[in-house]
Amino acid sequence: MNPSFSTSDENPVKAPFEPLLSLRWDNDKLLMLDQRLLPDEIIMLELFTSEQVFESIRSMKVRGAPAIGISAAYGVVLGSWEYKGEDADHWLKHVLKTAAYLAESRPTAVNLFWALDRMNKKAHQLAEQVGTTADRNAGLLEEAIAIHVEDEEVCRMIGEHALPLFSDGMGVLTHCNAGGLATAKYGTALAPMYLAHEKGINLKVYADETRPVLQGARLTAFELQQAGIDVTLLCDNMAGMVMSKGWIQAVIVGADRVAANGDVANKIGTYSVAVLAKAHNIPFYVACPLSTIDLSTASGAEIPIEERSAEEVTEGFGKRTAPQDIKVFNPAFDVTPNEYVTAIITEKGIVYPSYEEGLRNIFEV
Amino acid sequence: MNPSFSTSDENPVKAPFEPLLSLRWDNDKLLMLDQRLLPDEIIMLELFTSEQVFESIRSMKVRGAPAIGISAAYGVVLGSWEYKGEDADHWLKHVLKTAAYLAESRPTAVNLFWALDRMNKKAHQLAEQVGTTADRNAGLLEEAIAIHVEDEEVCRMIGEHALPLFSDGMGVLTHCNAGGLATAKYGTALAPMYLAHEKGINLKVYADETRPVLQGARLTAFELQQAGIDVTLLCDNMAGMVMSKGWIQAVIVGADRVAANGDVANKIGTYSVAVLAKAHNIPFYVACPLSTIDLSTASGAEIPIEERSAEEVTEGFGKRTAPQDIKVFNPAFDVTPNEYVTAIITEKGIVYPSYEEGLRNIFEV
Repeated sequence: MNPSFSTSDENPVKAPFEPLLSLRWDNDKLLMLDQRLLPDEIIMLELFTSEQVFESIRSMKVRGAPAIGISAAYGVVLGSWEYKGEDADHWLKHVLKTAAYLAESRPTAVNLFWALDRMNKKAHQLAEQVGTTADRNAGLLEEAIAIHVEDEEVCRMIGEHALPLFSDGMGVLTHCNAGGLATAKYGTALAPMYLAHEKGINLKVYADETRPVLQGARLTAFELQQAGIDVTLLCDNMAGMVMSKGWIQAVIVGADRVAANGDVANKIGTYSVAVLAKAHNIPFYVACPLSTIDLSTASGAEIPIEERSAEEVTEGFGKRTAPQDIKVFNPAFDVTPNEYVTAIITEKGIVYPSYEEGLRNIFEV
Repeated sequence: MNPSFSTSDENPVKAPFEPLLSLRWDNDKLLMLDQRLLPDEIIMLELFTSEQVFESIRSMKVRGAPAIGISAAYGVVLGSWEYKGEDADHWLKHVLKTAAYLAESRPTAVNLFWALDRMNKKAHQLAEQVGTTADRNAGLLEEAIAIHVEDEEVCRMIGEHALPLFSDGMGVLTHCNAGGLATAKYGTALAPMYLAHEKGINLKVYADETRPVLQGARLTAFELQQAGIDVTLLCDNMAGMVMSKGWIQAVIVGADRVAANGDVANKIGTYSVAVLAKAHNIPFYVACPLSTIDLSTASGAEIPIEERSAEEVTEGFGKRTAPQDIKVFNPAFDVTPNEYVTAIITEKGIVYPSYEEGLRNIFEV
């Protein structure tokens, strides 16, 4: 025991672990953790306008499909305040325009469109009710907060459903960050790791660093380390080797969009990990809320894949690491075909193949 | 046409392309390109002692199995000059000790041991001949220069043998740098690309950036771009996606050591690429000189895999990109089992499975 902290209590009660939150609503503004600066600097941004929210999503200050959805919902709220009149129709038009604008911030994650759609539906309802613009704006804020609060509960339920898939001593590989920082709290793919830790089940987590933006190194390794979970950082190209060594018993990742047939769009590199997992007979799990499953997208072929700037690859971290004018291919996501996906874990339960039917049914539960 | 360079000649003769050389012997010293600084800075180091050569190999100022071998041979020469007496036995002892020291610089690449072994054999011969220490030292230098000169010819022959495997318009993926910078000239895996370019055959090369040290981004992309070859830079985790798009018709990589059964130790990530290639029915070629093939290593299981420092992963980009004290797994190499290797291309010809017999036979050609 460290003498400078000794107390008469031999078994002091540990304060519960308080993770860093990616988003917080604060009266008249959205507080957003600038994830691009982690783990070096912990800076909460204050966002007062929908334009600031748009820019923060586009530049990946906030990332992770659920967190993007929540941010966009608050972006609609901030935008609604710009309308100064009392005409319900004009108000509605203004809100829908703000939502349409925010929908352009990033193309792949479906939670963005899901959250905006939910805000739009609420706006239509509010416009038809008797009330002032202040009432309507308050209604929108209530809806955004509901989306935010529900996400935490949803993530916890994903963790509960996933937990039985993991047992003490297992090696688990994850790619990118589908953790608390990607959501309201707990995360999707990382939720079972947090819950396992709470219950004293020890998992050995391997985190792909996830080039080019290093969400695995900067965010996943960081948040799991903060929580006291055993985590080892790998370069992406080491995943195959650690699998061949027999160190990995399961892979679990999040998703940016799941198509009706179970094809999964997720952070670039997920597909490679899925192919490697299959070659090593390791189950490959996808954890995501229902809001990530888009039954109107028939298959992965229909999912637009965002391409980002060459500089993310060539000068990502303070210095240039590739020749000038080199051609770069930098897709932000890839699509993992359903045949590589062992199961999809949602807040309503686990869906196994065939996904066409299973995913349709899970919405009815 | 740029007027300040206009001439009366409408079709000026292009000067032949002169690549940057990784190594040059200059009278009494070894000139070594510091590859850690590329492509930002082009700095030739002057090495006067075997200790400087040892340190340069260990810290990866020079890398690439053949270039490491050539460097070590010159390291023996520089070491031999420290012996000031005229006793042939003492001289031999001193040279063998220098070679044993240099053998400790890196554990995986077999060309290091091959070159040192060749220098040792030469030293034994020289010690038995009549002559002065100066004669013996001159004999050692001759042998090191022979190793150096032969490597260029060997690489060119590898390219000649590999060339028929490639045709105009093909997409070719490579990992790490098995180019001119890894050898005396031309490279091993990149040799067919240079030869194809000379013959007007256009290949579309995809270069994995190759974390953590980014040899693909800093060296392969650089030297192919310099030569005017069409090259696109990728993060390692994008290899699966570009294969699934049908953009890749062949993978070709170098090797640090090939075992008697055809298992291949090469830069970390090679195994993942090989598994991905097989899953996409893409041929996976290994290009290397016979000096990389070690018939005394029965299988990949016997190849020691160097683990390097965590900092290569956590602060490789000019700033720290991972949390303090995070656990890191950083193997420098992995082993690709022979069943993933379509063919091994040497200066004596192409070896197809089964490798046990084919590799034994190629030494007899």
